[in-house]
Amino acid sequence: MAGKRFKVTFEPEGKSVYVLGGTTIYEASGEAGIIIKAECGGIGVCGNCIVNIIRGDYEQKGSERFLTEEEIKKGSVLACRTRIKSDTVVEIPILSRLFDQKILTEGIEKELRLSPNVQKLFIKVEEPTLEDQRSDLDRLRDALKPIVSDPRISVDVLRRLPENLRKGNYGATIVLNEDEIIGIETGNKSDKNYGAAFDIGTTTVVGYLLDLNTGKQLGVAARTNPQTSFGDDVISRIHYANTNTDGLNNLHERIVSCLNDIINELADNTGIEKKFIYEITTTGNTTMNHLFLKLNPKYLALHPYVGVLRSDIDAFARELGVHINQHGKVYSMPNIASFVGGDTVAVILASEIHKSDKFRFAIDIGTNGELVMGNRERLIACSTAAGPAFEGARITFGMRASDGAIEKVLINKNDIEINTIGNVKAAGLCGTGLIDSIAELIKNGIINKNGKMLKKEELSSHVPDIIRERIISHDRYGTSFILIPGSDSKTQEDILLTQKDVRETQLAKGAIYAGYQILKAILGVTDEDIEDILLAGAFGNYIRREQAKWIGLLPDIPSEKIKFIGNAAGAGAKMVLLAKELRKEACDISINTEYIELAARNDFQKVFTDSMFFPECLAYK
Amino acid sequence: MAGKRFKVTFEPEGKSVYVLGGTTIYEASGEAGIIIKAECGGIGVCGNCIVNIIRGDYEQKGSERFLTEEEIKKGSVLACRTRIKSDTVVEIPILSRLFDQKILTEGIEKELRLSPNVQKLFIKVEEPTLEDQRSDLDRLRDALKPIVSDPRISVDVLRRLPENLRKGNYGATIVLNEDEIIGIETGNKSDKNYGAAFDIGTTTVVGYLLDLNTGKQLGVAARTNPQTSFGDDVISRIHYANTNTDGLNNLHERIVSCLNDIINELADNTGIEKKFIYEITTTGNTTMNHLFLKLNPKYLALHPYVGVLRSDIDAFARELGVHINQHGKVYSMPNIASFVGGDTVAVILASEIHKSDKFRFAIDIGTNGELVMGNRERLIACSTAAGPAFEGARITFGMRASDGAIEKVLINKNDIEINTIGNVKAAGLCGTGLIDSIAELIKNGIINKNGKMLKKEELSSHVPDIIRERIISHDRYGTSFILIPGSDSKTQEDILLTQKDVRETQLAKGAIYAGYQILKAILGVTDEDIEDILLAGAFGNYIRREQAKWIGLLPDIPSEKIKFIGNAAGAGAKMVLLAKELRKEACDISINTEYIELAARNDFQKVFTDSMFFPECLAYK
Repeated sequence: MAGKRFKVTFEPEGKSVYVLGGTTIYEASGEAGIIIKAECGGIGVCGNCIVNIIRGDYEQKGSERFLTEEEIKKGSVLACRTRIKSDTVVEIPILSRLFDQKILTEGIEKELRLSPNVQKLFIKVEEPTLEDQRSDLDRLRDALKPIVSDPRISVDVLRRLPENLRKGNYGATIVLNEDEIIGIETGNKSDKNYGAAFDIGTTTVVGYLLDLNTGKQLGVAARTNPQTSFGDDVISRIHYANTNTDGLNNLHERIVSCLNDIINELADNTGIEKKFIYEITTTGNTTMNHLFLKLNPKYLALHPYVGVLRSDIDAFARELGVHINQHGKVYSMPNIASFVGGDTVAVILASEIHKSDKFRFAIDIGTNGELVMGNRERLIACSTAAGPAFEGARITFGMRASDGAIEKVLINKNDIEINTIGNVKAAGLCGTGLIDSIAELIKNGIINKNGKMLKKEELSSHVPDIIRERIISHDRYGTSFILIPGSDSKTQEDILLTQKDVRETQLAKGAIYAGYQILKAILGVTDEDIEDILLAGAFGNYIRREQAKWIGLLPDIPSEKIKFIGNAAGAGAKMVLLAKELRKEACDISINTEYIELAARNDFQKVFTDSMFFPECLAYK
Repeated sequence: MAGKRFKVTFEPEGKSVYVLGGTTIYEASGEAGIIIKAECGGIGVCGNCIVNIIRGDYEQKGSERFLTEEEIKKGSVLACRTRIKSDTVVEIPILSRLFDQKILTEGIEKELRLSPNVQKLFIKVEEPTLEDQRSDLDRLRDALKPIVSDPRISVDVLRRLPENLRKGNYGATIVLNEDEIIGIETGNKSDKNYGAAFDIGTTTVVGYLLDLNTGKQLGVAARTNPQTSFGDDVISRIHYANTNTDGLNNLHERIVSCLNDIINELADNTGIEKKFIYEITTTGNTTMNHLFLKLNPKYLALHPYVGVLRSDIDAFARELGVHINQHGKVYSMPNIASFVGGDTVAVILASEIHKSDKFRFAIDIGTNGELVMGNRERLIACSTAAGPAFEGARITFGMRASDGAIEKVLINKNDIEINTIGNVKAAGLCGTGLIDSIAELIKNGIINKNGKMLKKEELSSHVPDIIRERIISHDRYGTSFILIPGSDSKTQEDILLTQKDVRETQLAKGAIYAGYQILKAILGVTDEDIEDILLAGAFGNYIRREQAKWIGLLPDIPSEKIKFIGNAAGAGAKMVLLAKELRKEACDISINTEYIELAARNDFQKVFTDSMFFPECLAYK
């Protein structure tokens, strides 16, 4: 079974992923970007992750604890206790979904009352007569009185009122954004009310299209942030902005056109007209937010490192060049500090750490690693220079977790098993593949405690030939491990894990781990006090906990305490789109979360250095 | 003395007018557009109109009642009791000014606290340090906290914050419009805070430039409304808008460019940069307001005659194309009904009829004649189709009251005395000249009760030759009276008063007088109940009461009850610019003033017909 790849399709989305045989449905769903609820972290003890297998062979152990024999016979199983044995079709019920359930369904979770900023209403006004010569606007305002008193209106929108009222026999659809009329449409179009939420990452931009009337998610689309060509981290982008004429403008236009591309894709895929998208919400790190708003990020990178904007801000989509309804708005979420942004606010908002009695720890691994630890009393956040390694950047054959990315590596005595996303020919290495390959090479004695990749001649004689022969000394990259051999004709290159890749990973995992240690020290807590560790971010979604613990990226605490919360930043952006009162809550989080500058602390350098080591391989000693 | 013209210069403005000898200073000041306070209406009994003669011969009778002998010796006199005998320079103290005093001076009139919407403040913020990494905007908001809590800011303005703060060593000038930061300027520019108020008349547009810090008026400029080439009254403009492609757009662009021309002129004359003008307020009739805002006026002219907008509205100067500060705003005053606009609201606001215990009557004679009657309990307004006769339109040789306009006509037995504005060669006939010439021709038996201009052969034999020979039968205009003979060589045409001009005037004065009768009837009051009649509008300013009563434009009530209040519509626009709380008051006036549609009343036609007659000339019977 192991070594063979199977296609798993999730319903009702119809989304498919290819995984190695033996993978759990829980794990596979994570790869598909669908976050199943599992309070226990996927160890079979909470009973949250019930799914229905529609087709396919599988092996399940432990569903009996929560399901009747009959239910199991019909295909209901715990996703975390069920392993794939063939191509499979699985339905994930709404009750088993984490954010989908919280965000996209009204009423199931009490705390998210659907209350978007934008409301559409079909309004009939009284027809004018000689006895009732109220102006068109007075007529409309009077009709709207039960909903909003004395709404504002721009001249531009008002200009459409007389014709649109008369075309519809004195009925028209009114678009309200808070207390402002931002649209007047002919006839009854109150059902066409859409918004989009964006997580603007340094490397990846994700957009979600939502129905503001139902809260339903209609589509999701992702793109590589096109600013990447100007530098792969925030500092290099700021540098570019400051040292090039029109640098800021270029970066701004790139990200805006990326959002527009995503909007186009979402609109095309769903058949929705862009003019019916009335609001977008955005979140991202502070630099990304500055660049999106075309605010000069210069002083973020200059002592004493202050931004132009910490708070949230409303803007007109038009003035930013975002192509939605011409009177549409943009809401940019508040930031915490210069290097902990709105994305972290969104993670806190979505994961509700700020409401927790117990201490919790969240890691949002993107191009930087933002860490948050605390509870309802106190929240501390910091940013680690984790680098974009886990997003594939700065890794020799790195790539984003998309089709062709090596996402899983298993080294057995006589075999090296590799799985790629989409089950297509390998094109590179994504974050999980990177962790897997390093973990496997440590376990097999090829990478030592210091992160050095041993040359062939330095290896223990017990290392099997099948592994040994993959180690080469590359002209350009030095000592490297061949993950996928190229063609003999050299028309296709080897796909390698290089010494440099290991160093990048060490820096990243060391920074995150050191941050964890320091946050604990500040709060005076130990591993045992931490209720759970929440892994957010596109990458966190795919991570394999045991491997991550093995290389020292995650602390060695019980795996059931380590939970995947998916793109929680995106979830936060969706929440403030769907529930306006959460904007106030986001602002409170933004103000009340303490920011810690790790590099400014005396203890940091030592903790960081200590955190860079790998475990020792004892297998061949 | 009579017949000779003298130059009267008013200080501190330095404004001059040319008047016939024997004219009172009170009358001359009105021609200069300076409204002197005179509660008694200029009959020497209130003592308000004290002025100081700096140079010139004059004859005064009656100042003793309010001034000491010594004061009179020094040149202090009552303006209404003093007649010009030579070129004269007169200073009008601020206490003797009507609107200037009320509007332009803080504290003298308690009810007008200077409280413009726009405030400028030089703000020093704390310099950032590693210990204080607040964002630039947080820093600014904290510094502004004593003035405004949590001000809004647009992204565009925010973009300037970091550089402007640092250029000024963490000090900058903040421009606040209510709770929004609309500007951030380097250094301390808090003294440069300007606004402009506009009265957009159908025929004439007047703009005032004001210092928002002091309330002082810095300049005034007027232009003919360039929409006039598309029709001289509101109905023809609406017709043009509806029957021409781009008609509305053309009208809109014309009026906006007129405002921009006036702004340029005001800026040039005062040396003020337009970027320091942050707000304009506008008033006008409902159609003018629609056209300025580019709101379709179509339904104003179609049964049942409703407008798009009655209420006030805020707009961005930018979106209307008005060239002031790029983040400047436009406040358009509220209207009363489809044919009684914001200009009437402004007249009421400025004249305070809405606060009066007694019944008052205001006439705003522009292209239409808007009439308001009432007191604090009840206010009724109507519009009369007075036509633009008094503004010179539809009059054969009509012109606006500017240099070269015949403004006064006196017919003595052996002489015809004519005065023109600016004491230059006559170019045409303005409203006062029109009234004067008709009144004089009635008195001399040339125009009869029905408004017919008699032919030479129809005249009484007692009519002196000097008058008789001025009557001609013109090829094109029919029976006409030569006011100014042309040159013998015919290189210059005669300036005539024609039969058609008399008919236009009859219609105009008949409509106004009929409106007065009907308003009285609705309120159940008589002439005796009317405390005063307020003449507003550029024309009202110049009117000679006895002549206006003689031709039946004004009711035959004591002249002291007839008061000039100048361009009260402009005054109202200035008031809402300088005192934001008056915007609420204007809205209350707009809602509470009842609109009467004269033409819809059964009694109107008869009253109107009766009002068109002239008095009978008994001189030559």
